[in-house]
Amino acid sequence: MDNFHRDREHDVLQPPRARRRFLASGLGLAGAAALPASIGAATPPGAVDRPVPADASKVPGYPLEDESYGSRSQFETEVRQRYKTATPLSSWTLTPLQDSIGIVTPSGLFFERSHSGTAVIDPRRHTLYVHGLVARPRKYSMADVKRFPSISRMLFLECSGNTLTEWSKPTMPTVQGTHGLTSTAEWTGVPLATILNEVGVRSSAKWLLAEGGDGAAMTRSIPIGKAMKDCILAWGQNGEALRPEQGYPLRLMVPGFEGNMNIKWLRRIEVSDAPFMTREETSKYTDIRPDGKAVQFSFEMDAKSVITSPSGGMRLAQPGFHEITGLAWSGRGSIRRVDVSVDGGRIWRQAQLQQPVLSLCHTRFRFPWQWDGKRSAVLQSRCIDDTGYVQPTLGQLIAARGLNGPLGSIYHLNSIQSWQLASNGEVTNVHHY
Amino acid sequence: MDNFHRDREHDVLQPPRARRRFLASGLGLAGAAALPASIGAATPPGAVDRPVPADASKVPGYPLEDESYGSRSQFETEVRQRYKTATPLSSWTLTPLQDSIGIVTPSGLFFERSHSGTAVIDPRRHTLYVHGLVARPRKYSMADVKRFPSISRMLFLECSGNTLTEWSKPTMPTVQGTHGLTSTAEWTGVPLATILNEVGVRSSAKWLLAEGGDGAAMTRSIPIGKAMKDCILAWGQNGEALRPEQGYPLRLMVPGFEGNMNIKWLRRIEVSDAPFMTREETSKYTDIRPDGKAVQFSFEMDAKSVITSPSGGMRLAQPGFHEITGLAWSGRGSIRRVDVSVDGGRIWRQAQLQQPVLSLCHTRFRFPWQWDGKRSAVLQSRCIDDTGYVQPTLGQLIAARGLNGPLGSIYHLNSIQSWQLASNGEVTNVHHY
Repeated sequence: MDNFHRDREHDVLQPPRARRRFLASGLGLAGAAALPASIGAATPPGAVDRPVPADASKVPGYPLEDESYGSRSQFETEVRQRYKTATPLSSWTLTPLQDSIGIVTPSGLFFERSHSGTAVIDPRRHTLYVHGLVARPRKYSMADVKRFPSISRMLFLECSGNTLTEWSKPTMPTVQGTHGLTSTAEWTGVPLATILNEVGVRSSAKWLLAEGGDGAAMTRSIPIGKAMKDCILAWGQNGEALRPEQGYPLRLMVPGFEGNMNIKWLRRIEVSDAPFMTREETSKYTDIRPDGKAVQFSFEMDAKSVITSPSGGMRLAQPGFHEITGLAWSGRGSIRRVDVSVDGGRIWRQAQLQQPVLSLCHTRFRFPWQWDGKRSAVLQSRCIDDTGYVQPTLGQLIAARGLNGPLGSIYHLNSIQSWQLASNGEVTNVHHY
Repeated sequence: MDNFHRDREHDVLQPPRARRRFLASGLGLAGAAALPASIGAATPPGAVDRPVPADASKVPGYPLEDESYGSRSQFETEVRQRYKTATPLSSWTLTPLQDSIGIVTPSGLFFERSHSGTAVIDPRRHTLYVHGLVARPRKYSMADVKRFPSISRMLFLECSGNTLTEWSKPTMPTVQGTHGLTSTAEWTGVPLATILNEVGVRSSAKWLLAEGGDGAAMTRSIPIGKAMKDCILAWGQNGEALRPEQGYPLRLMVPGFEGNMNIKWLRRIEVSDAPFMTREETSKYTDIRPDGKAVQFSFEMDAKSVITSPSGGMRLAQPGFHEITGLAWSGRGSIRRVDVSVDGGRIWRQAQLQQPVLSLCHTRFRFPWQWDGKRSAVLQSRCIDDTGYVQPTLGQLIAARGLNGPLGSIYHLNSIQSWQLASNGEVTNVHHY
């Protein structure tokens, strides 16, 4: 636990300041909702400020550029927000899920987690060394990697620490704060099995080590069965190269497994007959059981769902129709069903799942709802994956796992999230179980 | 034809200059291929220039920002390239398909086509007026539109003018030039049927007019059956708001129909009993038959495919394995099958289709291939959609449609594309039929 406690000194918990822009998020919301934060403020990141004509149909627009890589509208203000750890080198930023739509996360808003900042790597010099219990150890250049047949797959990623502030009491005011460490992209790369077959994995091989080329040399052990089944040496994200903070030029995708195993800036794979018991799978990223022992290991992300709108920090402007929508995902397969309750879990009704429902990917659910504008409500979602696993309540999760450590069980909090709608339309983060 | 000829004076055909960065594109290619164009050049658009350490594992990376909207790597250089029309206000830019992977097009590289530049519209002031043969005409604010239940759908868009330079002779050197007026995104919005049901369409209604709020007030007529079936009032693209050049804040998506019908900056829908015969569906965007008469109308984009790598302007560095990959799509449904030929159409072999294959969406195909490094080859792809339609050869298309107008039949060129691989590995655009 020493390492863990040392880290905790750096990772001081401090919920992001509540911001007007979060209050201004979402659909059909009051007053501030219609007002982008850019009014009277600096141009939002990722946008170009342009003059706004009184009537765009009376004047020409701005010309098309000879060569361009576009930017978003100056009226759109959502940003990744950094959790205020003591240093911005070992830190994380959260996806603004309150504004999420569909299942693709824009690459500029994909959550970040790194242990030594974002490495800057020249792809012409980057190599992947594959060695250990293999017949033909080899170093691959990026050009070598890209020559292999590739695949593309829409996959979610979730940090095992997602929602870690919510064990003991409702802490973060918005869904960005509570659940923003998960995002989805279309990843492209080479099946890891292809390269493992090239180097010739020995029959005694049971595990491999994946090591990052960043300043933290992030390392995790991965069972060889998983590696051969569906891991991807990914160099593409949402139709272009990996973004720098996602591991450019090469990342290991370990579909459905906790985020930190999806090693970024991947430079080395060592095949072995046993797990490597690295720092990141012993002192960190382990789940402590009620008896004080650590679970070895917690790879798959359990099924989880959350309502993204309406969610904490929003305010419903008016009674009448409101669409309740959110995301559900499971590290064990696909989402079979999502139920929604508006009365804190007494009555559950089935939500619609946006097609296509993809395995190991976010699934968008939608639920039509009429609010009478008077009664308060507690909004919850509960998912069931195709293994039959039912997302637990927080009470059930704590009963099974205990509350070890200063923040509870820290990792893998996948229980039902409750948003309380007050009679004045304000939505807040509550515990309800 | 007068309008058409007047337009032609402005839209002077001029293939983009061949650029080193296009030669440097693609997988497993020679020399220049591994060298990003950014070396010694300005920072590419959409990127931030950062110091490159000799060994990224020996130093911290750059810190995570408190609030961010990320950017791409400084080593990635692909851009949309503008076709050199006389004015950049009525012009188009092409997606760099030679670098495309998977099916999602990054929003910054999604092709553009506008008739009066990109309109800048404040979403708080934007309205959609729905009137004509309806019981309850109404003006909707963006907040009104967003309150309705929404859907998300991955859909391709293709300009009916895509490939228009290629009727008579191979003209554009790269696949960006020949086919770059098609892209795919996940669109989110409200089914048009929802709002048409709200306003109460009269039984005499057969058509509607969709009108844009840009300086060109782009207008098209859409059959009411299509409007009720699957059109979407889209305000979202790839998980965030529509990009400005895609019609922010509101666009009509007309799945599978030619790009210009997907009206951007949508401000008005008028329901009628007849088509409106606007300029953009009479003097422009019509197909002239061999007998000189125009087809009324050409809505659906016919099934089409193209190999994106290897493609024109690339050079294979070495013999051995090369993955042939590309995109296929149909405005009438989903892609059932893609065949690839490496000998100019004598022998066809079935390519693998990346799952999930979605209706009215790009489908990525892949075909493993060994090149002996000596023989030249003619690479082609041919798709079949789920209506049984087979992508024609250029000869078949010309036999059916004739070559009217200075550029051939101008619109809807969907025939098989040929790339010639020379024995020195260079790939060029050829006609082979």
